[in-house]
Amino acid sequence: MSLLFKKFRIHQIFGANTDVGKTILTSALVRASASLKNQVFYLKPVSTGPMRDADDEHVKCHAGSNKDLVHSHCLFRYDEPLSPHLAAKMAAEKDGRDVSVPSDETFVSSVASYIRRCASQSPAGAHMYVETAGGVHSPTLSGTTQLDSYRPLFLPTILIGDSKLGGISSTISSYESLLLRGYIVDSILLFKDTYYRNWEYLLPYFAERGVHVSALDAPPPREDDLDQNFTLTEQYYQSAVPEDHQGNLFDVLRRLDECHSQRIAELESMPGRTLDTVWWPFVQHGLVKDPMNVNVIDSAWGDYFSVYNGHKAISSLPAHSGTGNSLLEPQLDGSASWWTQALGHAHSSLTLAAARAAGRYGHVMFPEATHLPALKLSERLVKDGPGKGWASRAFISDNGSTGMEVAIKMALRAWTVRYGKGLANTIGAMDACEEGMYTCEWHQAKGYWFEPPSVSIRNGQTYITVPEAISKDGEIAVESMAWAYDIQKRLNTPLAQTYRQHIQGALERLEHRGGAPFAALVLEPLVLGAGGMVFVDPLFQRIMVDVVRGPSAASSKEWSGLPVIFDEVFVGLYRLGLQSTAPLLGVNPDISVYAKILTGGLLPLAVTLATDSIFQAFLSEKKVDALLHGHSYSAHAIGCEVANETLSIVQGLAEGREWDGAKEMWRELTPEREEAKVWSFWAPDFVHTVSNLGVVDEVMALGTVLAIKVKDRQGGYQSHSAQMIFKSLNLAVHGEAGGSSAPGGAPFSIHFRTLGNVAYFMTSLNTSSETTRSVEDAIWSVLKKAEEA
Amino acid sequence: MSLLFKKFRIHQIFGANTDVGKTILTSALVRASASLKNQVFYLKPVSTGPMRDADDEHVKCHAGSNKDLVHSHCLFRYDEPLSPHLAAKMAAEKDGRDVSVPSDETFVSSVASYIRRCASQSPAGAHMYVETAGGVHSPTLSGTTQLDSYRPLFLPTILIGDSKLGGISSTISSYESLLLRGYIVDSILLFKDTYYRNWEYLLPYFAERGVHVSALDAPPPREDDLDQNFTLTEQYYQSAVPEDHQGNLFDVLRRLDECHSQRIAELESMPGRTLDTVWWPFVQHGLVKDPMNVNVIDSAWGDYFSVYNGHKAISSLPAHSGTGNSLLEPQLDGSASWWTQALGHAHSSLTLAAARAAGRYGHVMFPEATHLPALKLSERLVKDGPGKGWASRAFISDNGSTGMEVAIKMALRAWTVRYGKGLANTIGAMDACEEGMYTCEWHQAKGYWFEPPSVSIRNGQTYITVPEAISKDGEIAVESMAWAYDIQKRLNTPLAQTYRQHIQGALERLEHRGGAPFAALVLEPLVLGAGGMVFVDPLFQRIMVDVVRGPSAASSKEWSGLPVIFDEVFVGLYRLGLQSTAPLLGVNPDISVYAKILTGGLLPLAVTLATDSIFQAFLSEKKVDALLHGHSYSAHAIGCEVANETLSIVQGLAEGREWDGAKEMWRELTPEREEAKVWSFWAPDFVHTVSNLGVVDEVMALGTVLAIKVKDRQGGYQSHSAQMIFKSLNLAVHGEAGGSSAPGGAPFSIHFRTLGNVAYFMTSLNTSSETTRSVEDAIWSVLKKAEEA
Repeated sequence: MSLLFKKFRIHQIFGANTDVGKTILTSALVRASASLKNQVFYLKPVSTGPMRDADDEHVKCHAGSNKDLVHSHCLFRYDEPLSPHLAAKMAAEKDGRDVSVPSDETFVSSVASYIRRCASQSPAGAHMYVETAGGVHSPTLSGTTQLDSYRPLFLPTILIGDSKLGGISSTISSYESLLLRGYIVDSILLFKDTYYRNWEYLLPYFAERGVHVSALDAPPPREDDLDQNFTLTEQYYQSAVPEDHQGNLFDVLRRLDECHSQRIAELESMPGRTLDTVWWPFVQHGLVKDPMNVNVIDSAWGDYFSVYNGHKAISSLPAHSGTGNSLLEPQLDGSASWWTQALGHAHSSLTLAAARAAGRYGHVMFPEATHLPALKLSERLVKDGPGKGWASRAFISDNGSTGMEVAIKMALRAWTVRYGKGLANTIGAMDACEEGMYTCEWHQAKGYWFEPPSVSIRNGQTYITVPEAISKDGEIAVESMAWAYDIQKRLNTPLAQTYRQHIQGALERLEHRGGAPFAALVLEPLVLGAGGMVFVDPLFQRIMVDVVRGPSAASSKEWSGLPVIFDEVFVGLYRLGLQSTAPLLGVNPDISVYAKILTGGLLPLAVTLATDSIFQAFLSEKKVDALLHGHSYSAHAIGCEVANETLSIVQGLAEGREWDGAKEMWRELTPEREEAKVWSFWAPDFVHTVSNLGVVDEVMALGTVLAIKVKDRQGGYQSHSAQMIFKSLNLAVHGEAGGSSAPGGAPFSIHFRTLGNVAYFMTSLNTSSETTRSVEDAIWSVLKKAEEA
Repeated sequence: MSLLFKKFRIHQIFGANTDVGKTILTSALVRASASLKNQVFYLKPVSTGPMRDADDEHVKCHAGSNKDLVHSHCLFRYDEPLSPHLAAKMAAEKDGRDVSVPSDETFVSSVASYIRRCASQSPAGAHMYVETAGGVHSPTLSGTTQLDSYRPLFLPTILIGDSKLGGISSTISSYESLLLRGYIVDSILLFKDTYYRNWEYLLPYFAERGVHVSALDAPPPREDDLDQNFTLTEQYYQSAVPEDHQGNLFDVLRRLDECHSQRIAELESMPGRTLDTVWWPFVQHGLVKDPMNVNVIDSAWGDYFSVYNGHKAISSLPAHSGTGNSLLEPQLDGSASWWTQALGHAHSSLTLAAARAAGRYGHVMFPEATHLPALKLSERLVKDGPGKGWASRAFISDNGSTGMEVAIKMALRAWTVRYGKGLANTIGAMDACEEGMYTCEWHQAKGYWFEPPSVSIRNGQTYITVPEAISKDGEIAVESMAWAYDIQKRLNTPLAQTYRQHIQGALERLEHRGGAPFAALVLEPLVLGAGGMVFVDPLFQRIMVDVVRGPSAASSKEWSGLPVIFDEVFVGLYRLGLQSTAPLLGVNPDISVYAKILTGGLLPLAVTLATDSIFQAFLSEKKVDALLHGHSYSAHAIGCEVANETLSIVQGLAEGREWDGAKEMWRELTPEREEAKVWSFWAPDFVHTVSNLGVVDEVMALGTVLAIKVKDRQGGYQSHSAQMIFKSLNLAVHGEAGGSSAPGGAPFSIHFRTLGNVAYFMTSLNTSSETTRSVEDAIWSVLKKAEEA
């Protein structure tokens, strides 16, 4: 992941094309840095072509009178003057089986560890230039293009512009491609070609966009005579890097130094500035007053944040202290950024989808209108997504909570139309939450909440825990997780009968008591998320639906009893390994809601699906009967397009083989090794072993979610026990020995959230098993320590 | 704007660089199209270099045996073999004053009208190829790069890839630049260079991204001997475009035909599919059953949608009917897409800002964390934006309504803490709206709403209209708009005294009546938007604040009386020509909310600002005291970065000269031609003239907003009178004679929204005065017709 050192300034050099003068300008920079008595490191990770043309040789030869300060190095060298991916392939073919093409992971780790080594060897500071090959999108060894390959390292960049005919275009396009990957572009350099005068155009063009462009004298044309060529080139460098340290190139150098120190100064200032101006959601500012506790996220990639650690009194990387210590360290995004991440941060397909929609539409008016991103999203969710088989309409809103608000409005109207009663004093859309820690003076709970039985693993055994109000049985050991989630098998068990009687009894009691009638059944299927990561017994939820709908439900196209809402905002779209929970529960809702994963973790959007029977309740000739809920940015194109892209990628994962390993682990636990209805990216061995620990009360895992409830007298939201036990994940060094699973191999910390005495961890849908295993290892070591304490 | 013809297929050819074979491949396409007996138009809008090299000559020469079907043309030709912007500049310099460099508008109009002419001359259908110059971002005559210059025409594109070393990179980058402008890329073509083999890489790369790549045999190397060169080239074309109509190029041709007809078929199907699956916000589906009434937005640019008209029974373009009639027409986005647009649709700076943030962060966790886009946005709004001088904190949420929800939660807590009373039965966050047309069974109004006096222009005279409940005076003629908005001057008028007494009296009466206490004052300053576009007398709002705060307010840093919330979601950030309404009202709020324009009309985001005094009410050592409101995508980087970019651009506009013309028009109406405190992009002459019409009740304009209330017996939201009168704007042809203000000069329709008997129109902050004038003309002609009826 990102590397940033206080005194060791690194810039990565990209080219707007091949043959634009990357090596020449980099050599000049190296020479200039050395002439100012800096140690200079020149790294060309990949070099192709014959040795005598090698870039690092060229740089060394022309480093000037301070060449002893210059260290040049190449990590992967190939003879063929071809694109690296072809050169590497040819070399592998030639050398036989033993030589394989390095993977992206190996490649990035090699580059990162070389950089870290250089940094630690330069306590007094140094400059480093990392020169890429060809243009910004030229493939690296594995075939991944450079922009994407190097992205985890997130080095600030210099773009060498193209001074030839057509070079304005290639320079701007290359810049835009850098931008699409979030790169910081500190400077654009190009030759002054006095005929095409590209620099005259590019200077103001980029100035308007806040990017600095410098034009430098062009080198002499290449001579066939090698000695002659060397002499002329040396003369060029002498004039470009004069002894008096004046001129364009030294201005550039000062600028690069300034960008570097400004970036560090900014990171340093961010915690304090944030505490001064920002009002965080769900945070008691009275408890977060120390700048050290502000998590400064400089960038993110895949499953990791890249966070600043310079302001932390106790460095999280004691083993790496000293000048070689990067001010940025990888931090695993263990809560999937509040349950949103599905494909990793800064996924380039999602960025491009956002760009595509913004470029084509911006945002356009939606009521009585249509556009492709919104239409395709609606059709996809209704016909091929979680609405398949029951939904007829998609209502697009801004986020999960508005999606649920829409759902409740739909249900209330449908109920009112059928039963002809007013609801003025019954249930408000925002009040469909139980009283609790997070409900305040503006909240009025309007509803009845069943205390749910739950599924969990304790001491290696799966249990159904039934609240006393429902049954005296308490904890019921069951044969397996697979069995617990096999509703069809369980429908005729005595427990099902107990549930049915309990639910019927409660509803009848409430009805006799008088007061407000019920107008909807709202479920968060399988897992109550914000409610404490409770894995509800699915049988209970199924029977709840059955009871509320009554016996005639199955035969009717109309909703029956009460409208049933599935809040799948958190649990849907494979968060729990299932596209929708409906097939597992064996019943379809009348209304359901999707958000979070819907947009792949990039930006908010929600969709509420409904049956035609619900839609009909709003249909009339009168405007006032319409669903009068709307946001000005309703169905914004950028959100819908990102959602479409996400659903395509997720469908690819669901239909592909990438999840097979995880599914196989859980299959082994099923009675006859049949395909598991429920499975998880977290290993069953790990889950069972952890559940045997003395400090652990119970554990559960479904899909991407792992929840560990620790033993605690207090419990609930007020508890801090999970926070205390797992606290060291935030600081500890994971994967230190022999490279971590973070790209580049640096040790990483884990960012996680707790809900009272429950700590939960969440992967994306494409998190590598190596990463998941390494998080399990980290959790294990923390729990072991707590166990021993 | 966009051009799309049923039988006249157009493709625009972009190059990944200069010298990649654009002209050769285009010539081959032209020849292939002609060989299949199609009329073929080849358009090279700009050509530079000596005549003998002219692309159109080359195309004609090699058109093959069906060359009589080929029409080639160039619109702007320059001798110098330079980038068009330099060639045009040199020509203008050489030819003296009379020859100026064509503007973007002239350029696009020339291209569009040539295309339309060709289309209308080809009733049986034809193929057209529009070849650009150089790379995708090479500048056109004005200096704007091609991607941006041609964007209003939104022609489907073919990208000619680069087959040379480095060409993988330039091809991908060029594609990404096309994508950032929303272009449809139907095909990528490139030569099979058997040494670099770029096509082998690009084929699967783009297949993964859903884009088709074809590799075609490379032409022979250029010969110095002209005749020899011609012969070899002709042989190449003969083999590339064989007589048997087989081979790669014909596959490409079939593909292009298919893309064209699929696009039209999709547009045709969209209205029906939308009516089948989409549930629109705020729309009674029972009233919109006819596909004809579905507005199909194919793309958007600047102030215009590009809408499909093929499904409309009555064509909106009768004058242009026939085969030359584009299936896409410009439609002015007259409601600024529900009040969101500030800089026009698909503004490339906003797209790039979104891309930059998505590429660097994706979305990252915000509570207890920080990242640059969110921090900068917070600081900017608090310190240099509407919060300057009073706000200390920024709370970022998802949209205007959640921003207001947060504001109300803030106020209620502050009130509760100070007065120590519970609020359980007082006001719910979502119930702070008056009962009305748009409040339904889930709504409980909790508050008191003052009937506001208003400002308007009737028969050319500015009036303050005072409700009878406040005063018997009724309509008070005042000397000018400028005077009406000069609060300082009006504070000691008798009307001010009347207002004060009325407000005090009402509050005392309500207090004596008992019941719930008031806990906050909520204002939508200057204009009640959704409430019917009512321009409230600012004096009344000022005095309301003064009364609620009491006499001690000014001297205290603490909030006084009740917390005051300014809902500036709609009115703030220059929608009314003012960054904030506070300076005009002469009082700062304790809490204020911004959204809509905040993100330039691209995607939703909101910020709630608050004073330190409000913030303190949540500060303690207990989590439960925190502001427990949050969304999982809180402060998403993409929204914050787009907001930062928007605020920079808007600040540039506010500080620059672009609004001077509009301000000057209004200055002329001030007593001593002093700078007007209030002004509008709408012309005062127009406003006054319209106000004199018999069908018009009153008119008002502030900033970007124009509201016209038509006379109507019914009034209010139930009224359809404005809808009836202005209906023809949706269909009428505007700017037909001599080119419209829409880019490309095609006649346009106007999309608008009404609120009962009020029709409103809204510009962006950068709408050209030509466009505003042409909308005024259109409105005028519709009103004149109503007047005469």
